[in-house]
Parts: sequence; C-alpha cells; structure tokens
Amino acid sequence: MTKYVYVFNEGNASMRNLLGGKGANLAEMTGLGLPVPRGFTVTTEACTRYYADAEKIASDIEDEIFATFAKTEAIVGKKFGDPSNPFLVSVRSGSRASMPGMMDTILNLGLNDSVVEGLAKLTENERFAYDSYRRFITMFSDVVMEVEKKKFDAILDAVKEEKKVHFDTDLTADDLKEIVKRFKALYLREKGEEFPQDPRVQLIESIEAVFRSWNNERAIAYRRMNDIPGDWGTAVNVQEMVYGNMGNTSGTGVAFTRNPATGENKLYGEFLMNAQGEDVVAGIRTPQTIDELNKVMPEVYEQFRMIAEKLENHYKDMQDMEFTIERGKLFMLQTRNGKRTAAAAMKIAVDLVSEGMLTKKDALMKIDPKQLDALLHPTFIQKDLKSATVIAKGLPASPGAAAGRIYFDAADAEKAVNERGEKVILVRLETSPEDIVGMDVSQGILTGRGGMTSHAAVVARGMGKCCVSGCSEVVIDEDKKIMKDKFGKVYNEGDWLSLDGSTGNVYGEAINTQDAELTGDFGTIMEWADEFRTLKIRANADSPKDAAVALSLGAEGIGLCRTEHMFFEADRIFAFRQMIVAKDAEARKKALDKILPIQREDFVGIFTEMKGHPVTIRLLDPPLHEFLPKEEDDIAELAKELGISSEELTSKIEMLHELNPMMGHRGCRLAVSYPEIAVMQTRAIIEAALAVNKNGGSVIPEIMIPLVCDIKELKFVKKLIVDTADSVIADSGVGLKYMVGTMIEIPRAALTADEIAKDAEFFSFGTNDLTQMTYGLSRDDAGRILDDYYRAKIFESDPTAKLDQIGVGKLMKIAVEGGKETRPDIKLGICGEHGGDPASIDFCHRIGLSYVSCSPFRVPIARLAAAQSAISNI
Amino acid sequence: MTKYVYVFNEGNASMRNLLGGKGANLAEMTGLGLPVPRGFTVTTEACTRYYADAEKIASDIEDEIFATFAKTEAIVGKKFGDPSNPFLVSVRSGSRASMPGMMDTILNLGLNDSVVEGLAKLTENERFAYDSYRRFITMFSDVVMEVEKKKFDAILDAVKEEKKVHFDTDLTADDLKEIVKRFKALYLREKGEEFPQDPRVQLIESIEAVFRSWNNERAIAYRRMNDIPGDWGTAVNVQEMVYGNMGNTSGTGVAFTRNPATGENKLYGEFLMNAQGEDVVAGIRTPQTIDELNKVMPEVYEQFRMIAEKLENHYKDMQDMEFTIERGKLFMLQTRNGKRTAAAAMKIAVDLVSEGMLTKKDALMKIDPKQLDALLHPTFIQKDLKSATVIAKGLPASPGAAAGRIYFDAADAEKAVNERGEKVILVRLETSPEDIVGMDVSQGILTGRGGMTSHAAVVARGMGKCCVSGCSEVVIDEDKKIMKDKFGKVYNEGDWLSLDGSTGNVYGEAINTQDAELTGDFGTIMEWADEFRTLKIRANADSPKDAAVALSLGAEGIGLCRTEHMFFEADRIFAFRQMIVAKDAEARKKALDKILPIQREDFVGIFTEMKGHPVTIRLLDPPLHEFLPKEEDDIAELAKELGISSEELTSKIEMLHELNPMMGHRGCRLAVSYPEIAVMQTRAIIEAALAVNKNGGSVIPEIMIPLVCDIKELKFVKKLIVDTADSVIADSGVGLKYMVGTMIEIPRAALTADEIAKDAEFFSFGTNDLTQMTYGLSRDDAGRILDDYYRAKIFESDPTAKLDQIGVGKLMKIAVEGGKETRPDIKLGICGEHGGDPASIDFCHRIGLSYVSCSPFRVPIARLAAAQSAISNI
Repeated sequence: MTKYVYVFNEGNASMRNLLGGKGANLAEMTGLGLPVPRGFTVTTEACTRYYADAEKIASDIEDEIFATFAKTEAIVGKKFGDPSNPFLVSVRSGSRASMPGMMDTILNLGLNDSVVEGLAKLTENERFAYDSYRRFITMFSDVVMEVEKKKFDAILDAVKEEKKVHFDTDLTADDLKEIVKRFKALYLREKGEEFPQDPRVQLIESIEAVFRSWNNERAIAYRRMNDIPGDWGTAVNVQEMVYGNMGNTSGTGVAFTRNPATGENKLYGEFLMNAQGEDVVAGIRTPQTIDELNKVMPEVYEQFRMIAEKLENHYKDMQDMEFTIERGKLFMLQTRNGKRTAAAAMKIAVDLVSEGMLTKKDALMKIDPKQLDALLHPTFIQKDLKSATVIAKGLPASPGAAAGRIYFDAADAEKAVNERGEKVILVRLETSPEDIVGMDVSQGILTGRGGMTSHAAVVARGMGKCCVSGCSEVVIDEDKKIMKDKFGKVYNEGDWLSLDGSTGNVYGEAINTQDAELTGDFGTIMEWADEFRTLKIRANADSPKDAAVALSLGAEGIGLCRTEHMFFEADRIFAFRQMIVAKDAEARKKALDKILPIQREDFVGIFTEMKGHPVTIRLLDPPLHEFLPKEEDDIAELAKELGISSEELTSKIEMLHELNPMMGHRGCRLAVSYPEIAVMQTRAIIEAALAVNKNGGSVIPEIMIPLVCDIKELKFVKKLIVDTADSVIADSGVGLKYMVGTMIEIPRAALTADEIAKDAEFFSFGTNDLTQMTYGLSRDDAGRILDDYYRAKIFESDPTAKLDQIGVGKLMKIAVEGGKETRPDIKLGICGEHGGDPASIDFCHRIGLSYVSCSPFRVPIARLAAAQSAISNI
Repeated sequence: MTKYVYVFNEGNASMRNLLGGKGANLAEMTGLGLPVPRGFTVTTEACTRYYADAEKIASDIEDEIFATFAKTEAIVGKKFGDPSNPFLVSVRSGSRASMPGMMDTILNLGLNDSVVEGLAKLTENERFAYDSYRRFITMFSDVVMEVEKKKFDAILDAVKEEKKVHFDTDLTADDLKEIVKRFKALYLREKGEEFPQDPRVQLIESIEAVFRSWNNERAIAYRRMNDIPGDWGTAVNVQEMVYGNMGNTSGTGVAFTRNPATGENKLYGEFLMNAQGEDVVAGIRTPQTIDELNKVMPEVYEQFRMIAEKLENHYKDMQDMEFTIERGKLFMLQTRNGKRTAAAAMKIAVDLVSEGMLTKKDALMKIDPKQLDALLHPTFIQKDLKSATVIAKGLPASPGAAAGRIYFDAADAEKAVNERGEKVILVRLETSPEDIVGMDVSQGILTGRGGMTSHAAVVARGMGKCCVSGCSEVVIDEDKKIMKDKFGKVYNEGDWLSLDGSTGNVYGEAINTQDAELTGDFGTIMEWADEFRTLKIRANADSPKDAAVALSLGAEGIGLCRTEHMFFEADRIFAFRQMIVAKDAEARKKALDKILPIQREDFVGIFTEMKGHPVTIRLLDPPLHEFLPKEEDDIAELAKELGISSEELTSKIEMLHELNPMMGHRGCRLAVSYPEIAVMQTRAIIEAALAVNKNGGSVIPEIMIPLVCDIKELKFVKKLIVDTADSVIADSGVGLKYMVGTMIEIPRAALTADEIAKDAEFFSFGTNDLTQMTYGLSRDDAGRILDDYYRAKIFESDPTAKLDQIGVGKLMKIAVEGGKETRPDIKLGICGEHGGDPASIDFCHRIGLSYVSCSPFRVPIARLAAAQSAISNI
C-alpha cells in the first residue's frame, strides 16, 4: 500500500520528488538533529491521487493524515482543539521545484472560539491569542475559502480608525476580539455558514486548498515559463506552530550562508524581534541585519551561525534559511539552496571549490546555465528601476535591458541612429527580414504580435539584443506612428521607452542601464566547463561582427551562417530583387553577377574573423516572396526602380504567393529551380576561402544545403556545388578542402538519413522546422491555438519553443543512427533555436551529436550545459 | 566481371530485368526451338553504365558487343560490311516494361554504298536493295542523328512527283538510287559529314541512341504516368534482318492468341504480303485478317497457329506476336503478353481457369487492377469518338467519359440541371468546397489549375465522376463565363464539351457515351478476389448515395465519412456560418442546435444504407475560413444575411486567416477551441445510431478524431465525445456500443503511436496529410516546384500522389508497431487517397493493416489488389 504521509523523521533530502523541496529539507534537518518544530508531510503522490479522484482527498489518505497527526500530537504532548493544551499548526505547500505561483502558508490552524480562550490563558497573553486568531481567520478565508483578503483588511482599518490607532500593534486585546467578531460575521455573510470551528475540517480544507493551488492560473503560467511538468503535483507540510511574536525574547528572520548578490562568504540576512514572518514581509518595521542578532541574543546568534555552517557543509551549497525564536529558543523552519545572482553563483562555485568543499564537477553542476544570460546582457541600474512603472508586459523574447527613443519603421530608426546619433527602440507589429538593419542599430525591439520563436525573437537573440515580443497590451499603429500603453497613454515617435527582455516588462520612460561585466570567476567556470564537456559549441552568426562576439564568448566555429539576411542590406537588395523578377536564367545570372563580389566580401569578412575555425554556410533558404514588398505603394515604387510596370511586379508577387509557404518553394527547392543562385553562392564562398587562405588562412568551408527531403535532391544540388567549387579551385591553381552537408529539418530527411548520409558529409538538425512539421503546427499560426490548448491543459508550453524529445527526438535518433551507419565519422550538429537550451543540449549530448550551435550570446550557457551533460551522463 | 551482352540462347523469360521484355522473350522463344532470327541483347545494366559513364559506352562494353557480334556472324555465316555476304541487323529498344515513348527500331543496319550493291547481287533484286538502303538512311538519320524524317519524306515525294508515280512501290531501282543519292546529300548538309559507311559506327551510334531515348521527354512522361522508375534503363536487341518484302512468298504480320477486345478464344490479327512492318503501320495497303493466311500459305499458317498455341500454353497467357515470312519461311520476331480491354481481361482470366491452364490465384495475378477503372465508368462510343478533335489536354484526374453543356459557376450548373434538365460540365479555374453540389449534378468537371490531388480531383474520384484537372491549355474566364481552347476558339456558357477523365482529353463537341456494364466474368473475378484477400475493403463515402454505390461495389464498411461536405448543403450552410461568426460559445451553441437535427438525419441515412456494416465518421476537419466567402461581393451579401456589418465579417475572416493553414487551426484543434462542435456532432452520430438500431439496425459507430499530434489532445477530445455519447445513451435507456479512434496523419502521431493507442481504439492513416508533412511539401503549392523537379530528374512523379513507402512508409511501420504493442487488437486502416492504389494496398497488406478505404468506384480495384497482395505475400 502506498504511504501518503511521512513524519519529518521518516524522510530525508533525497526524497524531494515525493516530499517536495520544503518537506525533504525539514526531514533532513530533523535527521541532522537540528531544532525543527515537529510535523509531517503529505506527499506529492497524494496530490496526484487528489486529481485522479476528481479533486477529492480519498478516505484512506484522510485516515492516514489523521493517524499521523495523532502520533505527532502524542510526541509534542498537545491536542488538536483542546483549549487546555492546544496543538496549533502551520500548513505550507512545497513542490519539487520552488513555485511562487502557488498558495504558500496558513498559520495558527487549530484555533477556534474556545481554543483561542485556552491559548490566552496558557500564554497569559489574551492580545497574542486574539491577534493569532484574526490572522488565522484572514488567511484561511482568503486562501482556502476564496473570501478576498481586502475585505478583512477593510474591517481592520475601520477598527483602527475607530480606535484612532496607527499600527496593528497598538490594538488592544479587546479591539482584536471585536475584529474577530466582525471577521466571523463577514465570513458568515460571504459563505453562508459559520467559520469552521472543527480543527479537523480546517486541516483537510487547507490541505485540499494547497492541492488546488497547484493548478491555479499563476502556478500554471509559472510552470510554463519554467518548464515544470504539470503532473508533478505538490506536497503539503503540516508543522507545529512556533511564535516569534511572544514578546521581546521572540523573533523571526531569514538568512543566507553567503551573500546572494555578490557571493561573499559571510552570513547575510535580517530579523525582526517580536514578530511573525508576515510582519517582516509587510515592511512596517525595518528589520535588523543578521549581525545585530549577535548583540541582541548572542547565544542564539552563535547557535544559528553554527547551524548555518553545518547546513552549508552538509548540503555543500549556499543555504537560504528561515528561523523563529520563541521565548529565547531557536527553531529552524526551512533551509534550501539559496537563489543567487549570476555573479554570486560564479563566485560561490569557485570559492566552494577552493575551500575544498566541492570538486570542479560538483561546482559546475550547481550552476543553472540559464542564469548566465544575466551576465551577458546589459541590466537596468536597480535604483533607477525601482521608481519606474510597468506600462505593459510582453514575452521575454531576448534577454537584456534597453532604453531608447521609439521608432515605428526600420528606416526611421536607422536615420535616427545614423544621422542624429540617437539611442533607439524599434517598435513594430511584427518584424520581417526587411527590418534586419533597423533591428541591428536599435537598443531593443518591441513587437505587438508573435511569440518566443517569431522573427523578431529569433533574430534579436541572434544579435544578443533585448527584445519583448507579442506585447498585446500595447496598441501599435504603424501608419500613424503612435503606440498606446495599457493605461491608454499615447507614445509618439521619438518618445522614450525602456524594455526588459528578461522579464518582458515595458517601461514608459528612460531607465539607465549598465553593461554586462564578465568577472574572473566567469572565466574560471567556463574553463572548467571546457575541461569536461565533449560536445563542441558553435554559434549561429551571419556577419563578421556576430562572428567576433561568438569567438569572444568561446564558440569553436559557426554552425549556421544564414545567407538570406545578407541580401537585405542596402547595397544588394535591389540586385537581388532584379534577380527575382528576371524573366530567364540569363537575366537572373546578370543580376547575380552584381551580387557575387559583395557576397564574396561577406564571406571573406567572416572567414577572416573566424581564424580557421569551421564555418557552416547555409545556401539561401526563405521563399523569394519574402524579399519583395507587400504594400501597394512599395510595390509601385519598386516597379519604377526596376523599370517594369506595377502590374508586372504585382503579378510576379502573386505568382510567388503560396498557400503554405512553410512547405513551399524554399530551401534547396530554390536551388533546383534557380541553380544560378546556388552556383553564385558557392562561387562566393570558395573564392572567399581561397582569398583568405592566400593570406595565410586555413579555411575549410562547410556548405550546407537546406530543406532536403530526398537523396536525389541532395545529389542534384551537391553536384551544382561541387562542379562550381572544383572549377573555381582548379582555376585558382591552389588546393582547397571543403565539405558539403545538409540540414535535417524535414521529417523525411530524418527518416531516410541512412540514404542521405551517402552524399552528406555532415548533418545539422534544423529543429525549428523539424518541430513544426513533426507536429503539423505552424508556429506563425500557433498563437490562438496555443491559448486554447493551455486552457484545456493539453500543452503546458509552446511545443515548438523547446525540443520535443519524445516525437522530434525520436526522428533525431533515427537520423543519427542512420547517418552513422552509412558514414561512421559523420559530423552531427544542431542549429535550431534549441541549440542554446540546456535541456535540449543534454538531449543532443545523449544521442551523440558532435556539436550544438546557438546564438553567440548563448555560447557560454551552451558550454556549461554541455559540461553538465558530460558530467551527469558518464 | 559483369556480363553486358547475351546471345539469345544464353537468356530466358525470367531475365526480363536484365534483358528487357523483348530480349527475354526472344531468348525464351529461341530456347523453345522456335524460328527466331539470330541475335543478342545488350543489357539494361549496360544502359545504366552508359549514364554512369557520362553518356558514353565504355570501351569494355563496346569490346563485348563486337565480340558477341563476331560470334553471331560466325553462326549465321555472314559478315558485317561484307558486300559478298553481308550481315544486316535490326536494332530495337526493349525495357522491362513496355515503353511506347522510347525509340523503337532501326532496320537494315549494316548497309552502305558497297554493301547495297552486294545485296542487290545476292538477292538479284536491285530495287529491293536500294529500297532497304533508303529506309535505313531515313531511320538512322531520324532516330540516331536527329535529322527530321519529314525532310527525307519531302525528297521522296519530290521524286515521286518527278516520276509521276503514286505509290512508293511504283518507284524503280533507278528512282531509288536517285533518292539514296539525294538522301545522302541531305545528310551531308544537315550533319556536315558523310553518312557513316562503317557498319560498326552505325551499330554503336544506334545502340547509344536507344540508351539516349530512355531519357527523352516522351519516355520520362510515360514513366511518370505509369510509375516506372527512371533507373531501370533499357536493353537493346540486335538481330539478324529477315525480310517480308522479298516478293509474294514473303510477308509480315501481328496476331493475338485471343481477341484482345472481347477475350474470345480465337486467333486474332492481320498480315500483309510483300511488306515490311512499317508498311503495315503506314496503312497504305489494307492488311488481311490472320484467317486468310490459311488460304494464302496454309502450311505457314498451320505452323504459326501451332506456335501461337505453344506460346500461350508456355506463357499461360494471351500472347501478342509479330512474325515475318521470308520467301516462304516463318520467323517469330516478338511475343509478349497481349494488352487487352478490361472486359477481355476478365473473360480471358476466367476462361484460362476453366480451360485448366491457370489456377484462380494465377488468374487473379494476371489482371492489372488499375484496368478495372474502365469497367466502372462510362466510356465514349468509339465510332463517335473517332471523328472528334482534341481541343486541349489536361490531367486524367478521375476516370470516365462525359458530355454536357458547360457552366462556369456551381449555382448556374445546378440551375441548368434542376430547372432545365440539361446535362452539364462544370468548368472552373479550380473548385472549392462550395462547389460540391454543383459538382455532384454535373456529368464531369474541367479545371484550369490543380493537380491529380487537387480538390476537384479528389472529390470527383470520390463521386466516381469524370474529371480533367489542371488543364492549362484552356483559358478560363469565370467572370465573363467564357473559355478558349488551345486553338483560340471561344466557348460560351451552354456550349457542348466532352471530357475523357481517363486520358485527360477535352473535346469541343458532344460525344455519345455508353454506361459501364459489369459482366458475369467481373463478378467471378471479384468473388475469387474475396476468397483470397485478407485485407478488408472499405469506402470513403459522405452520403447515403455514396454509401449505396460503395456497398454495391463490394465495400465492407465506410472507412471515412467526412462531415465537412455536409455543411455546404443549402439547408445548413447558413447556420454553420452563423456558428463561425458567433461571438461566444452560447451563440455558437444556438447555431449548432439548428444543425443538429439535419446532421442527425445525414447519419441516419448513411447508417440505414450501410445495414450494420461499420461506419467511421470523422469529426469536422477543415479550417473554418474554408466555409466563408472570399470575394468582396459575397462577403457583403453574407454579412447582410447574417445581420452584421461587412467590416465585422471581413475582420472575422481576416482573424481566421492563416499563414500556413495546412498546419493551422483545423482537425481536432477545432474541437479543442470549440468543443460545442464536437459535442453536437457526437450527439448527432449517437442519436442517429440509436434511432436506426431502434428500427432493427445494428450500428456500432466509429467516431474518428482528426489531426491528433499528442496523446493529451486525443484524451481531451475523446472525453468530450465519451461524455456526450454516454449521456445521450443513458437518456435513451437502451445500450449502444461505439468506438473512438484517431487519424494518424501528423508525423508526431505516428512517432508516438504507442502512447496514442492507449486512448484510440482504432487508427486510420491519413496518408494525404502525412505525406505532405513528412515531405514538408504542400500539395497546393507543389505545382511549379514539381515541374522543376521533373526536369532535374529528382522526382519522377508527384511524391504526394502515391504512397512513399520509404519515408512515409517508415512512419507507418513505426505507428503500426507502436499501436499493436499497446493494443494488440487495434483496428488499423488507411483512408487517404492512397487506399485505392494497388502498390499502396500491397504495402498496407504487408505492414499489417486491417483494412483500406478508398473512393467507392475504386473498391473493386482494391478488392483485386488486396487479393494479389495476399497471394504474392504468402
């Protein structure tokens, strides 16, 4: 029979999945002999049962709860509902991972009209007893019975007004009795029944409320953002109350074993005497720093200091602890690995190794790779941020902080930067490839539509630039060049805005930012990571600038150099459009001839920057209509420039129109229809490599063919490449090695990888497209569908946003096996957005890829994640 | 070392892949001791080598050809290029499958200026020798050197004019010498060199020409239409010449062992005395029927009759033979299994069994299932067809023949049929679901755009209705209601047109048709097929009418009943549109309430018709925007009817717009967003089943959820269905069994089929969508891409049109294995277009599906194909 309830001394820290983080650590501390109030944990499995049993605690579990409760009563020698010696408890949620969205705490449970009297007598403190009772009524009503807290606060305020007192602490016992009376009346009005007097009912209702809170909207949203599965469930901790508000020898506090902001090895925290936890949070009285406890109660301080040391040594990590002092006696209420800033995380990890507490491997495993993001991007100066108002919230699409004047058009943004030297935020409904240059000159990008994988988001992450996407709380009118925030305030072109790409917050003013600063500890951690990882890390980079950033952050090559962005630059977009509207291969070739030297220079720049590290260049991928304007005016203008009629251009654009462009004329299909393009690109790549090598370089270009679905298609395009490359090389009179490989981004390519590998020297998984096709879900259209799916609890997060290890992963495994079977030394990489995601990197490591490629600014994250994978998969 | 050349007596009929059909049969006849002129075959592998070696016959193969040639010379005792005893040969192509698109024959090879003199002396017939030479020059120049035949014909005509003679046969030896002179001069002019005099050069050039002809446009087109792989290559047969034109004891003819039109067991054919094969084809003299040979040369006739009998007995099939009589001696030049009409195929198969020559199994294997199409659809009356002109050619999208007055609008077509009783052909640029009713009342459908899997094609096949699609040779102006044919002639509304859906031919007049007639032999064959097959055959049917047709053709159930077509009918489209524009679930429900009784009647009709056979009903699948108008006028009109503003409706339509609708908001995603729709449909299905069962029926409805990609999605929609169904059943007070299953049409569903099977009682492979997503290729957009791919020889046919057994097939296998692992008794079917394709049916049989479902009119084809699968996969 499953055991659903564990007394603290039955558990330990390794039982986190069953007991939740809080429960497991309370059990562990109990086991260590630390002063922990008695109690027990109702397991996460009980929560799962609760949902399986149609949101009801089954009678067998209820029986087990009360049986364990009775045991605990016997140990502490108090009794539930016994006015002469009442047992009062707290009820707290506690899941595997910390979950701020969930219900937290109910204190003083067990109080009722007669117990409160008993408590008053026992403590000889009527005021304390009724204060506890009114707090309990508020908490229980609010979090369990959904009677809003503000209604109780209104009563409290009314009584304070009547009594003409300012602080809660000035209320007398009688005042509090009156408040309890009014609270109970409010409860009766709201719920149509008396406030529950039976402590057993209070307990079961509270536990159910914790279980319910697992699925409240905030919790679901939090889980979605943090990749926490919905079926984990939460545990519930029931624990004897101890009171920090029993007079001047009582108190409560929180402390970290090290400074969570800097990592400094010094006890850090604060406490408040004669207070309960919620008073600390309320901020009415200013807490004292933990050092001062040494003056107030030196023995207690010393005991706490030793416990802190013991805990840190025990957990081998910085601890975040809660404690209460009840009439001079110290109780530990919680310990956990403390949250810390990225910089602190680096320092603590390095320090713990030099202190001999951790090995390098262990230290690496303690750092959350995602946290490194904060080290790599500008952040707001905290004191400036404090006074700023959030005027809207969008998706945290690309991390970092930015402030600038807003422009609604890429060209306007460019002008503002280049001509007037302004700092700029580009505001668009959504971005398209035409906006690339405008995005590049901006501090940050704000879009009204599009998700975490929209064009704006993907490109911004590639640029390491702050981006808030899909911000539907603002109304953007691109034509009128105005924007309205969620309060209805209007912002005009040139007005200031600040964006936080790590939270999605938008501020209606300029907030000062500070640049990222990489400390020596960061370098040490990266060095250690490189020591252990076996996966190579490359970056996705389309320009010498990106390449330089990537190299400086430790990239070992470029895994994806997209060539389409290049065509949008001013010096070639016109020639490229001439190519598109060309009537025959001849005219197409003529236009391409103009692009060739410019494109060659692109590659010379990148190859030079990369100093012989491998560079994988993908041939043109997007459908050609993406390069043509959509608006009537723009079409007319372009037609004029091209020297053709508007009708002709319009009809060309219509001809290029596709019902499902995602599955249309793009990728290598372009090279089949217009071999001239692939030939020109190959020539540019090979000539660039030859030129760089002539000056002492050692480039071995890797030419990548996108969107292959059949071996014959690969053979055809490969032949174009090889014929061109070999003839250019032969003409040059010197030798050059190069490789030809393919993206695996269509399910059929993965399924027939054994065949494909006959002609592909390397595979690079394009998991963005592969995911969309495997799910049959276009990420451009997923928006509204996803909302319905979240509501129906079918999806917990956008399935295209992270690597689906089950379905897409199965295809990848098939491809890896097939590829290696045919060509044992095949190079295998991933260049989708997922290449920078730690969980996906771990998956890539496990299925045996050679490298991952990600945005330059995610390279350090990937290095650490790869090291963690290598360590944990030995 | 590979052997590339086989003398006829080294081969046999089983070596068809290597020697080609013609070569293998010549070898077999040689082995049977029949009178076959000596010769040898250059293998298909030599052809493959030719292409691998950059279109050049390698020297080792050339050596082998001449070595074998020398052996043959020794046997026949003649010598290549020896005027005193010249060896003359024919060179013929011969691939595995008959390929009318390829080069056929060069006769008299070996002749040159001196050999022709020798031949004249040897035969004592100068006229014959020069006639042979001028024929050889023409053929060699035309098919090998690409000098057009008409230029030679012009010379021939000129000489005839000069000599004032009417028939070639009236030309004297001197005339022919003059012609040869002029022919050679023409050749020199055209090619800049003398006509080749070296027989060895003639031979090698001719063999290369045959190899080249394997990849000419006609051959490629033929292969595409007949699913013949491009890498088979062709063999070349080099054979001693025999002459049917050596006087009145010589002749040539073709004959079948049975009547190829009716199947009657009687020698059938024709011959011409003193003639070569091409004279028979030229049709200048009228050939005599084969019976008459008995009068002309009774001994030769008797010898031929016995050979025919021997060959039929040997091959156990009706033979199609070519023969030549040279100065009284009979030579067999070819035998092969004869092509026959569908009716003849049935009769011959049944007769061969009753004659004891074949077992039932063997007989079934002899019939090409695709041929049955002709038996099931109307055909033109042949004599009426003969005088008709093809005014355009499109794709043979749905077989059958039809004549009718043209209308350019579904509503006009309906009116013409319903009000004026006209026979109608619907002509559209392309059809959409709104045209369904108009298509249904028409005799046939002609579209200007769209391929074999376009809406028009798919729906027409489902209706068993003639359709020619993608006919770009006509210019259709739907607004002006006119059409222009390829000659520029204009057709107005109401003009007559005839369509042949089996060939794609369009005729500009009314041609009489005759209805399909199913003979007793057809029934016998179907009975035999049912005896052996293990696959069940179901039909895709959306109406009681379709269901009745399906049953009558032997369907054992409905594998796919699409519900979307139902919504387009006049009595509900309005309510359905109200549902789409509804502002909330409440309004949506109200609209759906109106549809419920009508939808219930749909199902009552189908269940009643199907008499307890299983019926799989798919819930609504297409995106909702398909149900709304696209044109401004129509939008305005509908807005008025709906009582909302045009702007509101337009904005609703825009909101529903998707970038990639194929991967957008459709299938079960609709049921997640609008559960009311699935609930209404379930209620209609269950209530209908209850109603029919109350009247003695035994319906067990199978409810199918489309477009599932994740088990949780399936669970969600299944719960809607089960909750609704169970409550309707409970209310009815009687029991009802029903099943809930899913389409497997998204790659991820196939990849996670083991999970999906936990909640799906059956799978039905939707291979249309599965193929598109597996290839990342939208069939709506594939048109232009495919042309480029055919040209580049990457694809030989539309990969979405037939089941890709390699890629898509791999996914299907994964799904079958996963499904059976979880649920060993899971029902597995296929309901994509491929369910009616013999090769795909064989694949379905082999991977262990339970049934295939296809258009009603393809059910007999599927029954036969399934039997053939069962027989050949024992």
